[in-house]
Amino acid sequence: MTGLPFPSMPEASRADAMEGFVRTHRARFEAALADVLPMPAGLPPALPQAAAAALGVKGHPGSRWRPLLTLAAAQACGGEDSAALPVALAVELTHTASLILDDLPSMDDSPLRRSRAATHLEVGTGGAILLALSLLGRSAELLGSIPDSGGALAAEWGGAFGIGGMCGGQAVDLTGAFADGGSPRRLHRKKTTGLSEFALKGAAIAVGASAETEAGLARFGRDLGWAYQLADDADDWVEDGQFGKGPAGRAPRRQSLRLLIRSLRTLRATPGLDAQGRVLLAALAERTAGATAGTPESEPDHERWGMTA
Amino acid sequence: MTGLPFPSMPEASRADAMEGFVRTHRARFEAALADVLPMPAGLPPALPQAAAAALGVKGHPGSRWRPLLTLAAAQACGGEDSAALPVALAVELTHTASLILDDLPSMDDSPLRRSRAATHLEVGTGGAILLALSLLGRSAELLGSIPDSGGALAAEWGGAFGIGGMCGGQAVDLTGAFADGGSPRRLHRKKTTGLSEFALKGAAIAVGASAETEAGLARFGRDLGWAYQLADDADDWVEDGQFGKGPAGRAPRRQSLRLLIRSLRTLRATPGLDAQGRVLLAALAERTAGATAGTPESEPDHERWGMTA
Repeated sequence: MTGLPFPSMPEASRADAMEGFVRTHRARFEAALADVLPMPAGLPPALPQAAAAALGVKGHPGSRWRPLLTLAAAQACGGEDSAALPVALAVELTHTASLILDDLPSMDDSPLRRSRAATHLEVGTGGAILLALSLLGRSAELLGSIPDSGGALAAEWGGAFGIGGMCGGQAVDLTGAFADGGSPRRLHRKKTTGLSEFALKGAAIAVGASAETEAGLARFGRDLGWAYQLADDADDWVEDGQFGKGPAGRAPRRQSLRLLIRSLRTLRATPGLDAQGRVLLAALAERTAGATAGTPESEPDHERWGMTA
Repeated sequence: MTGLPFPSMPEASRADAMEGFVRTHRARFEAALADVLPMPAGLPPALPQAAAAALGVKGHPGSRWRPLLTLAAAQACGGEDSAALPVALAVELTHTASLILDDLPSMDDSPLRRSRAATHLEVGTGGAILLALSLLGRSAELLGSIPDSGGALAAEWGGAFGIGGMCGGQAVDLTGAFADGGSPRRLHRKKTTGLSEFALKGAAIAVGASAETEAGLARFGRDLGWAYQLADDADDWVEDGQFGKGPAGRAPRRQSLRLLIRSLRTLRATPGLDAQGRVLLAALAERTAGATAGTPESEPDHERWGMTA
């Protein structure tokens, strides 16, 4: 990892610090997530089961990189993790809602999610839509109830998933208009970056960080979200056997790494973060975008990171 | 209308006051609604058109009874209408989102809405889902941005449309479990009453009314919403030729009237409303539930209202 913008801590200690944070916070987060959606009496019983499966409360939980970044960012701002926990939960609920909707026959028509049948195969398309909306409703409750900053958080969140955010991006995705470049392409990225930006920015708002810290973390989250998406797409192409071995085929991975590096530079330039928190965020970012990107065996690390040692 | 709980003002003056309010506020509301959803560059052009049609900004606008009640309630609390305008807009956006989703093939599979093709026939099922979600995202932005009470409003709104509100009620509707009575039946009502309750309660929160005023207006909105739904269902049954002429067939209308009367009694008992505002709310309530209920020609008014003069 030589050459990355955080050389001050030995890689091994950095990894240890991150693993410790992930272990502790992930356990707490999973426990909170399991109780986050109170089910009203009278609801068809298939819905609570489908909700638990979609959230990964039972079965495969997913990496939870977004909510972990939210908690780490709150800590890096010198805030309490507990203040950002409702933001972290809302981020994961909103992410899960987007997965349920993405898998619908009218969207990507995908039968599998998190190693299980997609939600609409369990409770029908109508049930899946209602479940996704319920996760969004609960997100609004969680965010709006945060003292002092609840209104600002709810407003930011609404923008993140609305027509200028995830929904607009997915609409461009559906029509394929992103291939034209320009404004459709920029809007298309918001499908992914809307929520990753909110995951970081929301932490700053919840703990009352300065506007400069908020803006820096927002930019960090935006670049990191897109870096993750490009790496993830590249992995899918490999699985599908569509990923070329030539220079053109490697372009998404290289772009992902460029964005990861830019996000780390932004992090270094963001004021109001403590040193330990900054290192933790950097390590989580590398894990998020880097781990997914994978490396052809023959490629040395310094080439993998797109720079010479 | 003899015997209704607001005998203090002659019916003609009451009707004039209401008509004046509706004329002024409706025009302002329509103008605000037309500009409420800024469309990002790069969006497929069919979506803004479908949004305008779904909201009734172009074409048939619907009665707008919910947002008008929101504005009237804010005024009755002694607040500024302008403070409640974002609430009124969010209420109509959320209502429209629910209509778009209700019409989907996986829900009621309805080809027509507001005298036009349903949204999914214009932009596909995926586009319709994304548009509905965008209206919800914009609602969160509007509510969260209201000074002081934005967090509380966003949280209430999330509960109103979430699993314990509109979504839960619609889930019961889809499965038909409401016919069993008990808790499924109670949850089913929230499909309608979730939003009508929020339309009134949200006005109280936005203008900083007391907890007693808020609770009274919430109850008023809940009963009125269900009164409206029963009257509306009865009308549909008449249109479909399914509505019996015998006592059983008239049951929904009688129940609607009973609920309207209960809502008016609640209104009279709610503290913190000025006299003029109370009369205005009562007149709007009668129009909402009463006008829709219709009257067999042969039935005298006092029988229509379910009580003797």
